[in-house]
Amino acid sequence: MSDTEHLTTGSTKPIFPDDGVLRLYSMRFCPYAHRVHLVLDAKNIPHHNIYINLQAKPDWFTKMSSTAKVPALEVVKEGENTVLIESLVICDYLDEMYPEVPLYPTDPLKKAQDKILVQRFGHFITSLYKMLLDDKRELDLTDLITDLEIYENELKQRGSKFFGGSKPGMLDYMIWPWCERFAALKLGDGTQAELDPQRFLTLLQWRDLMLQDKAVKIFYLDGETHDKYMNSRKAGSADYNML
Amino acid sequence: MSDTEHLTTGSTKPIFPDDGVLRLYSMRFCPYAHRVHLVLDAKNIPHHNIYINLQAKPDWFTKMSSTAKVPALEVVKEGENTVLIESLVICDYLDEMYPEVPLYPTDPLKKAQDKILVQRFGHFITSLYKMLLDDKRELDLTDLITDLEIYENELKQRGSKFFGGSKPGMLDYMIWPWCERFAALKLGDGTQAELDPQRFLTLLQWRDLMLQDKAVKIFYLDGETHDKYMNSRKAGSADYNML
Repeated sequence: MSDTEHLTTGSTKPIFPDDGVLRLYSMRFCPYAHRVHLVLDAKNIPHHNIYINLQAKPDWFTKMSSTAKVPALEVVKEGENTVLIESLVICDYLDEMYPEVPLYPTDPLKKAQDKILVQRFGHFITSLYKMLLDDKRELDLTDLITDLEIYENELKQRGSKFFGGSKPGMLDYMIWPWCERFAALKLGDGTQAELDPQRFLTLLQWRDLMLQDKAVKIFYLDGETHDKYMNSRKAGSADYNML
Repeated sequence: MSDTEHLTTGSTKPIFPDDGVLRLYSMRFCPYAHRVHLVLDAKNIPHHNIYINLQAKPDWFTKMSSTAKVPALEVVKEGENTVLIESLVICDYLDEMYPEVPLYPTDPLKKAQDKILVQRFGHFITSLYKMLLDDKRELDLTDLITDLEIYENELKQRGSKFFGGSKPGMLDYMIWPWCERFAALKLGDGTQAELDPQRFLTLLQWRDLMLQDKAVKIFYLDGETHDKYMNSRKAGSADYNML
């Protein structure tokens, strides 16, 4: 099968060597799964990627996980496999288990502040997805801009390249999937939605720096590709295997 | 002021000694704030409680916190105060900072599994609150029962008194506030909703054991009191100071 073929109803479960390597069940265009890919790649954690067709899930996948959601991380441990769900839980688990490339600040207070900023990003996520899936002609960026100003001001105040300092940290990676997808947001006349370069000076510099990050590059897709996928989804038949 | 008087618009900010003691901004009937009270009490962490009238918030509170939500934990550190929000973030912070009474399993995998069960409880929370606030005559417990069966089966499988083992852990405390409020759920004829004692044998034993826990006892309110508060809220004027 090709690298990103999404397994579907009737498929057989891939067989992996009994080597203890993590198995990530994902969907190539899922932003929550994207978070886990970023953390795995940032930490150079060996893993198998298994892509799932979410509109026609394999029976073995439905049976394997309590919710049949992606991302799901299968941890192979002492002959007994455990399946973790929820992107933030999975990423925190990976950070605890693979501390060589730490993604959180060591100060618990600073760590808590970063987690709050991840939680608050949920409002931007909801607004962006509503706009990506809705009729774009009624595009009103007000909500998105209000949300992003929190991050613009925060990063300006921190005075570092990334929220994580000189390198991307957990906060950078947890919000990135939707920042990447912002490039898929088109105005009514078909042109790309852009942030005011003066108002979002710091955040736009951050975006350019993120685009040069190794983990971001590995899983990156441009706005056109994200847009093409979203259009297939809106048309009622998500084209999981378009890559 | 009385112990649980809720400060309102026009009130002055309470002055505390510069002793580094944590300050918890709370609302006596808020289940999310309840989570933080449980963790503070379970760990015997000294703290000041400040109760906020959420329908008429003090100006100083609105200015102090980015979202003006409760629970909010003010951490007094090196002359600079930091305000944390989001119940789960606060509780995780407290567990990291005050490790003497650890609330999570030490195994990161088991910890992640407990966090998933906290996340999944969100569905029960939504259903329960909808029923507590809606017209009770249309009471259908199906959704609640389906959700609770996950926890009944899980605890049965663990074979321990509590989800945390021989003592309540983070999962026990994070789901407790809504389990306590289940006693406020009344059927159409005014009688209390009850779980089938056979079907929920393990979870009902757990409830009785939780009711004997020190931290649970400190902040406990019975079903009648929760019901009385919910009725005041439904009537459009939440009676924060009823205790």
